[in-house]
Amino acid sequence: MGKGKIAAQVGHASVQAFLNTGVSHPLHVERWLATGQKKICVKVPDGDRFPSLIALAKQANVPYHLVHDAGHTQIPSGSQTVLALGPFDEGALDGITGELKLL
Amino acid sequence: MGKGKIAAQVGHASVQAFLNTGVSHPLHVERWLATGQKKICVKVPDGDRFPSLIALAKQANVPYHLVHDAGHTQIPSGSQTVLALGPFDEGALDGITGELKLL
Repeated sequence: MGKGKIAAQVGHASVQAFLNTGVSHPLHVERWLATGQKKICVKVPDGDRFPSLIALAKQANVPYHLVHDAGHTQIPSGSQTVLALGPFDEGALDGITGELKLL
Repeated sequence: MGKGKIAAQVGHASVQAFLNTGVSHPLHVERWLATGQKKICVKVPDGDRFPSLIALAKQANVPYHLVHDAGHTQIPSGSQTVLALGPFDEGALDGITGELKLL
């Protein structure tokens, strides 16, 4: 994906993670809004890594959202592009993604 | 900015535009949520372009949010990085950004 495509996918992930977590963990969202809305973008080698990350998120009760692209541009419809985790405690998020490199 | 930095800034812009517009133009946000949350990333030559874009947004009553980076990484604190417009009618948005190239 080009950088504009990546940016739009991260935009989707950010809004949907905010909405989902607002329902399941509203206090985490309140704290996140009050402390600068920190976001960290890391990368996976390929989409095969998403299932194991999701399994870790479920174990730790971390809310997540996997973006499936509509496929209007650049990539096939339904492609998994971005996994959003949180907003949540940094320690729990680091336990899931701490090994991954920054995007 | 590297692509991870751009992506995070667009994430900030997306969430804040969603929140602001939800207050000022809730029906536009409802429609946007119901129709796939379309986002388009375009680029400006430099930040000097932001004031004229904001002037056009104000004229057209289009909600906007200008992201100022906290400056923890890569760029000076307070740098203007992303201008979010909408969610709003595509025609009005095209009137503001239609001349700009895709990111």
